[in-house]
This record gives sequence, C-alpha cells and structure tokens, in this order.
Amino acid sequence: MTSNRTEYSTRIRDAVAHREPGRSLPAPFYTDREHFDLDLAAVYGRSWVFAAPEAEIPEPGDYLTVDLGPWSVIVVRGGDGEPRAFHNVCRHRGSRILTEERGSTGNIVCGYHKWTYGTDGALRHAPAQPAGFDRSCFGLRPVRLRAVAGLLFLCLADRTPEDFDEVAARIEPYLRPHRLAEARVAVRSDLVEHGNWKLVMENNRECYHCDGHPELLRAYFPTFGYTEETVPPPLRPVYERSCRADTELRQRLDKLGVPHALIEEADGRATGFRVQRSALDLAGESMTPDGTAACRRTLGDLPDTRLGDLSLHLQPNTWFHACADHAVTFSVRPLAPDRTLLRTTWLVHPDAEEGTDYDPGTLTKVWTATNEQDAALVARAQRGVADPAYLPGPYAPNEHQVEAFCAWYLDRLREELQR
Amino acid sequence: MTSNRTEYSTRIRDAVAHREPGRSLPAPFYTDREHFDLDLAAVYGRSWVFAAPEAEIPEPGDYLTVDLGPWSVIVVRGGDGEPRAFHNVCRHRGSRILTEERGSTGNIVCGYHKWTYGTDGALRHAPAQPAGFDRSCFGLRPVRLRAVAGLLFLCLADRTPEDFDEVAARIEPYLRPHRLAEARVAVRSDLVEHGNWKLVMENNRECYHCDGHPELLRAYFPTFGYTEETVPPPLRPVYERSCRADTELRQRLDKLGVPHALIEEADGRATGFRVQRSALDLAGESMTPDGTAACRRTLGDLPDTRLGDLSLHLQPNTWFHACADHAVTFSVRPLAPDRTLLRTTWLVHPDAEEGTDYDPGTLTKVWTATNEQDAALVARAQRGVADPAYLPGPYAPNEHQVEAFCAWYLDRLREELQR
Amino acid sequence: MTSNRTEYSTRIRDAVAHREPGRSLPAPFYTDREHFDLDLAAVYGRSWVFAAPEAEIPEPGDYLTVDLGPWSVIVVRGGDGEPRAFHNVCRHRGSRILTEERGSTGNIVCGYHKWTYGTDGALRHAPAQPAGFDRSCFGLRPVRLRAVAGLLFLCLADRTPEDFDEVAARIEPYLRPHRLAEARVAVRSDLVEHGNWKLVMENNRECYHCDGHPELLRAYFPTFGYTEETVPPPLRPVYERSCRADTELRQRLDKLGVPHALIEEADGRATGFRVQRSALDLAGESMTPDGTAACRRTLGDLPDTRLGDLSLHLQPNTWFHACADHAVTFSVRPLAPDRTLLRTTWLVHPDAEEGTDYDPGTLTKVWTATNEQDAALVARAQRGVADPAYLPGPYAPNEHQVEAFCAWYLDRLREELQR
Repeated sequence: MTSNRTEYSTRIRDAVAHREPGRSLPAPFYTDREHFDLDLAAVYGRSWVFAAPEAEIPEPGDYLTVDLGPWSVIVVRGGDGEPRAFHNVCRHRGSRILTEERGSTGNIVCGYHKWTYGTDGALRHAPAQPAGFDRSCFGLRPVRLRAVAGLLFLCLADRTPEDFDEVAARIEPYLRPHRLAEARVAVRSDLVEHGNWKLVMENNRECYHCDGHPELLRAYFPTFGYTEETVPPPLRPVYERSCRADTELRQRLDKLGVPHALIEEADGRATGFRVQRSALDLAGESMTPDGTAACRRTLGDLPDTRLGDLSLHLQPNTWFHACADHAVTFSVRPLAPDRTLLRTTWLVHPDAEEGTDYDPGTLTKVWTATNEQDAALVARAQRGVADPAYLPGPYAPNEHQVEAFCAWYLDRLREELQR
Repeated sequence: MTSNRTEYSTRIRDAVAHREPGRSLPAPFYTDREHFDLDLAAVYGRSWVFAAPEAEIPEPGDYLTVDLGPWSVIVVRGGDGEPRAFHNVCRHRGSRILTEERGSTGNIVCGYHKWTYGTDGALRHAPAQPAGFDRSCFGLRPVRLRAVAGLLFLCLADRTPEDFDEVAARIEPYLRPHRLAEARVAVRSDLVEHGNWKLVMENNRECYHCDGHPELLRAYFPTFGYTEETVPPPLRPVYERSCRADTELRQRLDKLGVPHALIEEADGRATGFRVQRSALDLAGESMTPDGTAACRRTLGDLPDTRLGDLSLHLQPNTWFHACADHAVTFSVRPLAPDRTLLRTTWLVHPDAEEGTDYDPGTLTKVWTATNEQDAALVARAQRGVADPAYLPGPYAPNEHQVEAFCAWYLDRLREELQR
Repeated sequence: MTSNRTEYSTRIRDAVAHREPGRSLPAPFYTDREHFDLDLAAVYGRSWVFAAPEAEIPEPGDYLTVDLGPWSVIVVRGGDGEPRAFHNVCRHRGSRILTEERGSTGNIVCGYHKWTYGTDGALRHAPAQPAGFDRSCFGLRPVRLRAVAGLLFLCLADRTPEDFDEVAARIEPYLRPHRLAEARVAVRSDLVEHGNWKLVMENNRECYHCDGHPELLRAYFPTFGYTEETVPPPLRPVYERSCRADTELRQRLDKLGVPHALIEEADGRATGFRVQRSALDLAGESMTPDGTAACRRTLGDLPDTRLGDLSLHLQPNTWFHACADHAVTFSVRPLAPDRTLLRTTWLVHPDAEEGTDYDPGTLTKVWTATNEQDAALVARAQRGVADPAYLPGPYAPNEHQVEAFCAWYLDRLREELQR
C-alpha cells in the first residue's frame, strides 16, 4: 500500500524467527514502534479488515470514514446502490477530504480547494487547472471492499488474500438468517483501550479471565469455557444443564435449517476465523441481563426467538454476536503501540423503534459492561508486558485460541518479511 | 549553530534529491522527525527569521523571548537604545535565563544562581567564583539581529545569508511610509496550528482556497487571485472594478512617491521575498469588514487614508500587511513536525487609544477569522499527507508561489546537506 | 535485569568518554532517549535504590508498589514479618499484578487470570493448568531488598554492588537513634518535576542556589553553604553564631554518643554517599518555620530535643533529613528524559497523633516550599540544556558535590558500557 518499502531491522527479524510457541509473545511485539509499523503493514495493510455493517450506509450517498492506523478510508454507497471504498486523501495536495465520521453527500468534495469526486471516485471537477489537465489521472485511489451477508470488509492491498471467497462462502449461511444487510444501527460506542491491538484480540480469544465478566457469564452459562474434563465438581449440575440446553438448541436449529456446527480455523490460513452457535442461559433468547429479547422485533425471518448466540470471529480485527433479536459488531483499530480503538455497533430490525421496541440501555448493557472490564484488563496487561522483568509465560489449555491467534499473526509477519 | 554536527541518513538525502517539481512535497517532509530536525538546522538555523516588530521593545531594558523550535532568543533594547539578541541560556550550567515572554529589566539575571549579564550580554557578576575566574569568557552568546524599517530579524547562524542587505534595501522603501518603528502594539494573538510549518507557509502562498475566507475576500475584491485569463465570466464586472481601483491606487501612490510595484523573488536566492501593494474593496481604506479604517490615527505620515494593502512576504517564516491605519505581522514558529505556532501582532499609531481611536474587535476581525480558517485547512492537510495513500499531486497555475516556496526550501536543504 | 542486551551507539560511547570534568554535562545526557535508557540500565538497574521507609509496611501483608522507570516492584512484608520485593509482573502472560500504590493482602493475586502467589513469591495456585504443570517454575521474580535502620533499598540487578554492606554499616549508627523502623508515616507527597532525574539530584547537591529557598535558609543558618573563606563580610556575625551553635551541638552529641562527623564519599565507589549532622538556627530543634519541634513526641529514645539535622545523601536517588522530632525521606524516580517523580515522606513517632501531637501543615512547610522552588529551578534548567545554544559551563567551588555526583554517574555508565 505504501509507496516506500520499509527496511526492517535484524532485531525485528530475529524476534519473529525465535518466538517460543505456547507462550505469550515477547514484549517488543506489544510495545515497540517498529513492531507496530510492521503490524500495520503486514496485518492491517494486507488482510480483509472488518470496516462496518452495511447498515451504516443504507442509502445512496451515505458514507463512513474508517480510520485504521494512519489510513483513512471512505466507504460510500454509490448512486447505483453499490458500496465502494476509497482512500480519504485528495489527489491534489493530499488533504483529508471528508472529516466527519459519517454523513450523506452527492459528490465527494475536498474542503481545501474544492476538488470534486463522484461517489464512484472519478475526479469530476478540479478548479483552475490548465487546459490539458487530465482528470482521469486523478481519481480517488480505490480500496477493495466486499460485503458478506451485510458486513463490509476492506482490503488495503492490491493483492488480496486468496482464501476470502471460501471463508465468505462458509460463514454466509451462518449469518444469512439474521438479515444484517437490512438491519438498522441502534447504538454505537467507541472505547479507547490502553493496550496494543493484539492484547485486545488475545483477551477476546479466551474465557480464562471470565470471572471478571459477571454480566457476560450470566447471559452465557456460568460454566462457559469449561469442558467435561475441566469443570469443577460444584459446577457440574450447571454444566449438565448447559449441555442439555445446547442439545435442545441444536435440534431446534436443525429443524429450522440454521447451521450451528463449530468451525475453528483461526490458524494456518490468511483469513483466520471461527464460528459457532451456543445456547444462552436464563430465558435463552438474547445476551441481556435476564436472557429475554432486548428488541420485540426479531432481526431475521425465522419464527423462533431462541436461536442462541451466533459467535463469529475473524482475523485480524473483529468478532460478532447475533441473537434472534439483535446483533453486535466489534471493530478493533490500532491507534498506537499502546492504544487501540474498539468500535461496538448494535443492530436491530429496520422497523424497530427506540422506546417502543427496544430500550437502548437494556440492549447494550452486557457488552458495555464487558467492554469496560476488558479495557481494564488490557491496560494492566500492557503495563506488565512493558516491564523489563516480563518473561513470556505459558498458555493454559483453555487459551488455545490465543495461541492460534499468535501463530496466525506470526505467519503474517513472516510473509511480509519475505516480500 | 549546534555544536554537534548531525549525520543525515541516505533516506533523507534521497528524498531531497528526487522530489518532483510542480507537485506537492512527499509525505516525510511534513511528518518525519528527521526531516523536521533538518528543517530547523537548514532553514531556521541559517536564515534571517522574523522575530518581532520593534514596537515590542520600545524602551531601553525592554525585552522579548523568542522561541524557535528548541532555541530561545532574548531580544532586548540596550541602555544605548540599540536592540540586540542573545541565546537565552545561562553560561553557567545552562539554565533558561528569562522565562517570561516579555518584560523590562536593567540586567539580565539568571534565576538559578544569579549570574548577572548586562543588556549588552557581558557577564557582570558570577557569585562565589574563585579568584582567576575570567568573566569575559562567559558572556551571553550573541545572535545576529537586524532592524528593517521597524521589523526585527534574527539569524542563528554565524555566517548570515549574503543577500539580506540587498533585500532590506529593496523592501525598506515600501515599509518606510508606515513608520512601523514608532508604532505601538495594539493586540497580539497566538494560535497553535496542527500542521507542519511548511503547510502553514504554503497555505499562505495561494488564494486557490480563498472561497473558505469570506472575511478576507470581502476586504480584498472577490476576484482576488484571478487573472485576465482565469476570471470566470460572472465575475468579470467585479474583476474590471478591481482593475480600475488598482489603476487609480497606483496613480495616487505615484503622486505620493510611495512604491507599489510587484517584486516577486521567492525563489533562486537565500532570502526569498515578495512585495506588492493592492487596492482594497468597499471603503478601500483597511482590511476591515466594511473597508473603513479600523483606527482613526493613520500609522505613518502620509495625508491619504487610502493606500491599499502593502503585502510583504519573507521566507522562511513571515508575511505582513500594512494599510494606512494599521499593520499586521505574522511569525511562523515550528513546534513539532505536526505543530506550528502562528503569532499575529497588530500595530497602530503610537498615540492611538483603545476605545477612542480603535476597537480591538474590529481591528482584528478579518485576520482572526482568516487565521482560524487557515488553521482548520492546515490541520486537514496534515492528516492527509500523513496517510500512507498520499501521493504528491499537481499544483495549479495559481499555486505558482507554493512551487516557488518549495523550490527555495529544497535549495536550503541541499546547501545544508553539502556542508 | 532486562533479558535483551542493548547495543549502545558510538555517539553515546563518545559522549561518555569525552565529558570535560568540572563542567556541567553535555546536553544529550539530559535530553536524549538513548541516554535515558542507558541511565535506567546502568544506574537504576544496577544500584541499591531507595524504595521507601519500612514504616510504609508495618504489618504482615502490607505492601507497596514502587515504580522505577519501566519497572514496577512489589515491596511486601511477609507473614514471617520479613520485608521482601518482587517484580510486579505475572508469570502467566505478564499482566501487572498489583495496581494500587499500597495496600494489605494475604496473597498476591493477579486480577487477570487469578494466578495466586504467596507473600514469599511462590506461585500457590494457577487455575486450569494441566496435570504436570510445575508451579515451582513460575514464582514471582525476586528483587533484592535490604533494610538499613528502617530504610528499604532495592536492587534490580542479580549482582549487587559489593560495597553496600560497608556503607550500611557506616550510616547505620547515624540513623539508629531516630528508630525509623518503628516510625509512622505522617504525610506523603508526590511531585512531578519537569526535568531529567540528574538535574533533580544535582540541584540537591549544592546550596549555590539557596537564595531561592527562604524557608530552608531560615531553618538552617542564612550562611548555610558558606565557608570561612567565602562568607561575605556582612554575614560574618551570623557565620560565627552558626559556628558556635555547631560546636555546642557536637559537644552535646558526643556526650550522648550520637555520631556526627562528616563523611563524604559521593565519588569513587559504587554506593556514593555523604552524611553529616548540622546545627539548626532559631529554636534549633527542627526544620520548621521557627525551629521548634513540629511533633511533641521525639522520634527516637534520646532525652534531648536539640539534635540538629542529620543529612544523609545516597546515590543514585535519595536524600534524608532527620531531626529529634521527625524525619523526611526523598525518593527520585525517573519517568522520562525530561520528567521525574519526587516522592517525599514525613515520619513521626508511632504514637504521635495528628492534631494533638503535630500539625501536618507545620510539619511539612519547609520541604513542601523547598520542593516546589526546586521543581521550578529544575524545569528552567531542563529547558536551557535542551537549547542547541547550551554549552557546558564551569562549576563553582561550592558546587563540588555536583561534580562528585557527575563523576560517580559517569563511572556507572563506563562500567555498563564495558559489560
């Protein structure tokens, strides 16, 4: 993406070559500016990155600006109804073009010297240019964009990862019943976490720390994360209840033709992902304090309100949860080696009305609390790994997804260093 | 100036060698710490830099501290009435000596250990030093200072640019009628812009963006910046009105013996500059909302209140405007690769009284608004050029002064890299 | 301490090799990130560093977290009454374990995944680890800790300076009468100074600047810092009064068997130090505005309330003052090249009651004022040495302790660069 190739130091090459599997990453991966720049180039600059739900730009001319590290990307729905993406940089002297986070516009006009681009990226008008000025040389630089069942992914590289079509084809049936492309944004929230983006992702890949998430554990079963082998004896009755709920859920989903099997391919491919559908505790409808639906209108077109929780994880930067009544998207965006933006977006049925059909407080309660708890954990993790006394330590078996994430991540760095 | 010579990297030498003329500068010139350090050494450390109007230090003992990047310079009027400049660094253990922005003092006393210097820089007293201590070895380090028609310029280098005498001789007749050396400071303002200092200067060198300056365009003619060839047909009547005003102004100035011809030598010499006098619209007296004088007392000694606008530009860091009733000085001071201080100072007749002769709000209205508008543009330009997708783009013909500034700037870097 | 050895540049080796004795240090020692990192490794990572008075952790389970640059250290009193220190970094994935500045706890529990350590550092419980997981490999990493007459020192290096036992044995008799191990913390204060940690230490090593400390000079004699040779004639009567008070104090101390002789070995050894006992002016009891005791209960077990001021200095980061009625400890902690934390702690008799036996405002008045005055001086010194025009200047004879500190400091760097 960047025009200048960066020369990485021997130090960084050694760090990538010699990381010990099964242990947390060495400190510089989390603290060092050069590592951060490599992450941006190798991971955010190469992968399909989750940008936003399509619901953010329902109408032609609707746009978003998506900031990823030093990049800013305009995601805009064209007059023809197609979503497209462009670098948010004027082809004249490089000014940022759109400075609002979202809006609606007929043309994309740079506020500096009024260079005017269509929603297809073509330069329509550049004032005061001489005869012979060729506008066709100065269209907005395009960014690859893909919609998958209502979720928009962008790729900053010219050569996109080859396996995304296959991944999209496999996750689409899981998402399809929720009709996210037609959903409406109910609530958004931004949280700046004081830790490296990988600590945010790693933290999300294990429930070893879930004691710190009382709201989340109440929505799931309190035995979430335990297996037949690891569940402590006092929790066995709860564990068995959760197994019965799970069996019952899968039978119901099979009848409805809704896929639910776990696929876990976080490692060993460019587009690491994981998808599963799990039963919820209490009323069993939604990730809410009492498990009842947060929204009266169900999201998709299925008659049942008890579909459990569809949990989708996609590397490098996102996870999703979808219940019958609402969905939540998460987008992880690096700001600095030790700062990361987490954007959370709650989606509901397009006709659901705030106050009547849903209460925003109830809708967002579990994940707002969980995000804040995670942010505190990530901050203390960042401070610890920045201490010279830090030594990478061993992952527990229930942290195998963290190890898979790290293995995937290091493969991305190796590929970049070989370019 | 600095004692340690800096070794610049191959990367920076390549960037200077290979910049494409006619296009905006590559990103690292605006974003990179090493480029910023080179700018300080090659440009601010070598050129005659505008420090302040003499009006800031009217009496013996009056002083200013002028911060330029990491440097701080004391500009003080000596007991003999002469303005002088010294590094604001104690010769004992290096403490900053004067910490206020301006004041008045008999001696220059360091607040740490009371080393006491005269306003001529000589060390007068150093307490508790042993017999044999030679005070003459520890005077303040002098900085070159020149007054030109009431404007003070300083040069941090030992070898000053050779062409400054000539430039001073050519601009002095333009400034002389305004008698700035006798003026009084009416208002000062400081604005921190979130962009590189060159983006601040470049932005000032073109009116391609002047649609964003309604107050400024009202003071000038709305066709400001257009030529016979480029003026849009609907604006032609206004354009012709402005030409008539200009012709009429020049006839009047010729009668008064006030020079007005355009000189444009921003490029091809060490002290790049440009000077011109233009007609103003509306009442035609001053850069105010309605064109009438902001101050009842005229600045200089001329009978006419309609002298148009004297616009003087001097590289690296300043521009000036002078009307019959007041003058405004601008000083651009780098703070960081992406932060710049703009100091604006309004000057009026020494006997003009606030409230009676002028209203500070009216006096400052046009340039306060214009500065704020420019700061917003510079901030968005900085964010854009810091995006990895930025590519240098083509200057329009009406941006030829920006190209001249860039060419001049690159010559300064080349000279520095050859030292 | 750090696992990765750092390669220091030729630039930094040259700077250490070529510093001119008798002059203040060149600018990069105070401003440069690489120099700062070397300071942390060579000085704070190798020396015995003052952590806190024992009075901070009177009971078993009481703990402190001590942050030194990037390190955080837990200082905890074990169940057996012994104080110990550990790196505040979890052996699992490196999270910061304790996030409060002080507290009391039975076990040391990491808030992330509940790894639980005893106050002896042993890992007692790591949830969800597989059979075969060897807890004994994952105890907290210990940090060396020494108590000297109620003052706790820590050393981050595995090989501690060999001369500390001897230094401890020599200063212990000076401190013993004050029984600091039994004292109580009356007041703490933290001050962030805007200067390099060495400027904070250097400033403390001379009274050339004491004109700026009216409160301190009133507690001491106004001639503090002058010698027979340097005292100005008008101050000679005061000087003679101070000499008489000093003689009288020493006679009294000899009768009590309290050591008072000056030892000054700041230079030429790993644990540079200086100790002396001086007479106080006015009532002569304490460092208070009128010289009377700030606390009705005397600290130690001596019948006399007029013991003068015990002044102890220990490199790299501390100084102490103890009078009959109270003691003050100072701990200097680097935060950044240009920012330093100064923690000041006032100690009184364990049974002294606030309001009845002492007024906190009176107790802290002299050093609160002095610290703030010093912080202002350090800030202006930092700004001055960061100016490219700064040249190292000559120390006056009354700054010989500053020179000793610099010589000691450079020896530490040389040792580190030879490792």
